[in-house]
Amino acid sequence: MNNFIFQNPTKLVFGKGQIAQLATLIPAEKNIMITYGGGSIFKNGIYDQVKEALKNHNVTEFGGIEPNPEYETLMRCVKECKEKKIDFLLAVGGGSVIDGTKFIATALKWDGEPWDFLEKPLATGDALPLATVLTIPATGSEMNNGSVISRREFKQKLFFFNDACFPQFSILDPTAIYSLPKKQIANGVIDTYIHVVEQYLTYDNKAEVQDYWAEGILKTLLDVAPKLMANQTDYDSCANFMYSATMALNGFIAMGVVTDWATHMIGQELTALHGLDHGVTLAIVYPGVANVMKDDKRAKLTQYAERVFNITEGTDDEKIEKALSMTADFFKSLGVKIRLSDYNIGEDTIEEVARRFADKNFILGENRNITPDKIREILQFVK
Amino acid sequence: MNNFIFQNPTKLVFGKGQIAQLATLIPAEKNIMITYGGGSIFKNGIYDQVKEALKNHNVTEFGGIEPNPEYETLMRCVKECKEKKIDFLLAVGGGSVIDGTKFIATALKWDGEPWDFLEKPLATGDALPLATVLTIPATGSEMNNGSVISRREFKQKLFFFNDACFPQFSILDPTAIYSLPKKQIANGVIDTYIHVVEQYLTYDNKAEVQDYWAEGILKTLLDVAPKLMANQTDYDSCANFMYSATMALNGFIAMGVVTDWATHMIGQELTALHGLDHGVTLAIVYPGVANVMKDDKRAKLTQYAERVFNITEGTDDEKIEKALSMTADFFKSLGVKIRLSDYNIGEDTIEEVARRFADKNFILGENRNITPDKIREILQFVK
Repeated sequence: MNNFIFQNPTKLVFGKGQIAQLATLIPAEKNIMITYGGGSIFKNGIYDQVKEALKNHNVTEFGGIEPNPEYETLMRCVKECKEKKIDFLLAVGGGSVIDGTKFIATALKWDGEPWDFLEKPLATGDALPLATVLTIPATGSEMNNGSVISRREFKQKLFFFNDACFPQFSILDPTAIYSLPKKQIANGVIDTYIHVVEQYLTYDNKAEVQDYWAEGILKTLLDVAPKLMANQTDYDSCANFMYSATMALNGFIAMGVVTDWATHMIGQELTALHGLDHGVTLAIVYPGVANVMKDDKRAKLTQYAERVFNITEGTDDEKIEKALSMTADFFKSLGVKIRLSDYNIGEDTIEEVARRFADKNFILGENRNITPDKIREILQFVK
Repeated sequence: MNNFIFQNPTKLVFGKGQIAQLATLIPAEKNIMITYGGGSIFKNGIYDQVKEALKNHNVTEFGGIEPNPEYETLMRCVKECKEKKIDFLLAVGGGSVIDGTKFIATALKWDGEPWDFLEKPLATGDALPLATVLTIPATGSEMNNGSVISRREFKQKLFFFNDACFPQFSILDPTAIYSLPKKQIANGVIDTYIHVVEQYLTYDNKAEVQDYWAEGILKTLLDVAPKLMANQTDYDSCANFMYSATMALNGFIAMGVVTDWATHMIGQELTALHGLDHGVTLAIVYPGVANVMKDDKRAKLTQYAERVFNITEGTDDEKIEKALSMTADFFKSLGVKIRLSDYNIGEDTIEEVARRFADKNFILGENRNITPDKIREILQFVK
């Protein structure tokens, strides 16, 4: 096990009916900005619950934060927060709204051009206090310090981390899933699955509990996803999925292990260039990463086959091949197409993505050996 | 899954050589009281590492906190802290030293007789800041808000919880295990194992991830304990054990599930009356709880047999019997005797324990149906 430092101060408030707790979770004197996305919260009743809980608070609203939250939109909110002397941000939405709100919170305490703090690790230690009401399980942003922001003008999608951006609390009511479009459930399941994979399918770190915990989340997703696709108002399946999504990226399974993140980094470029859903990019890219980097990942891929899919017959390579084929089948069973060609993406994009990593001098993977050439090979594999 | 609220702000600083981080983890202006136990830290080099790291800090020391930390001892430290205007407590030791230090921290901010805040849930919300350097993996106290204190004068052992008692940080260096007496390793393994069992072997809560995570810790303990008994300087086994002990009682596996704690509550009385090691009392009492409460716990005990011990043959009752027999064999393999008669404890004590719970009107168990009569039955089972 590697040395590590871990801390996660976010309070989780989980379960049916918990949105009402907002009334006491946010101090009465706070001047709150509620941020949200495209307006689904008006249809599923969450907006009404939030407003009812905060009826004695001073509240302003900012809607329209888009999937892959856009710098220009967020900067408009920053301006409004300054004008209204907002001192507490409440994100009501999925990962895009929460990530966007973390950007707003940081920008409000940042001197200079906010785009500058992106991709500068821990570039800032300050942020306006923020909290969340989660409506889409997927990104884990409700219990971590990370955020990914897009700037369509430059076809860029960049991330930052800021410890001051751990939400003070996050309310997770699984009934939010009842009215989600199936596509968002599918994307959320894949995002959660690949979050775990990025932290688990590396090399053996002799971290036994962490391995079992990663496998536990994967097995839970394999169990609940088909149930949710059949009946998305089954409370226990919703709760197990929502819980999995948060646990997959709150640092709990990352302690003492190396992590990969190549699939996310490459997928991010596909979103920046073609606007593909984040979950879809992960389902496309991962089979390429697993196959091209198989020699590095052999021990853990074999363990994955044996422990997650109970594959006991055959050589290690045969086990791995079967496990990866079952993984791909799982993604496809959620209605997602997993080839670049399914999205009319070809050689030009493959070259552009490889070029972008070469330009930034980024080498990916747990062994820091996924070079731009390997990235090209990975994308060729999933053409 | 049940509704829940979770928050754990403790920072973990894990790994070889991490004690040196004390130099920057505690602000320079703090007036520190270092608390410790019987002096093993002078032999294993931990004292020297702590002093070296804090050479530029103002430090006082208080030693002699005993196993099952004693009220009288702790009150002497409280007095000294007041006299010296201490404003930061650093516990260097195992669960007893840490629990004792939580009591000191709370007592220093409590008006009136400190014995009064024991067994009053969340009786106080204040405490002096504290942190820990863990030397014995076992109780999980290094990453939770609980504490158990003894008062031999009254033959009592009582607990309290105080959110202000989450350590600000805990340093976990697995090499601390290299020089531990085997008995302390055995007790720590059993304590950790039963912590998991108390949160897992209840009834089915439809909490899939939590079940897998509990099973993951148990499987890790079953794997590493024999390795540690054979070679306690195997770093990875030490790290996996130390990590397991912390993860078993920091709230991570308790989210959304009911918990039992009958084994701990009954075992605590055996320590209060006869001074038995905490881990030993758990190894004695648990087989009684599992057998007497088998009807309530059948579904989870069967799952335990199947998933933790891979027992696939036989009826549910046969699987459970085999799993409980393997559990008892595991405890015995650590050199612990698991019958009351092995410790010359007989009917008198059984009656006294049942009477104590009757007097306090305490009903135990996840279904709140372990009455004093059931407690008598449990202890008769393990006579």
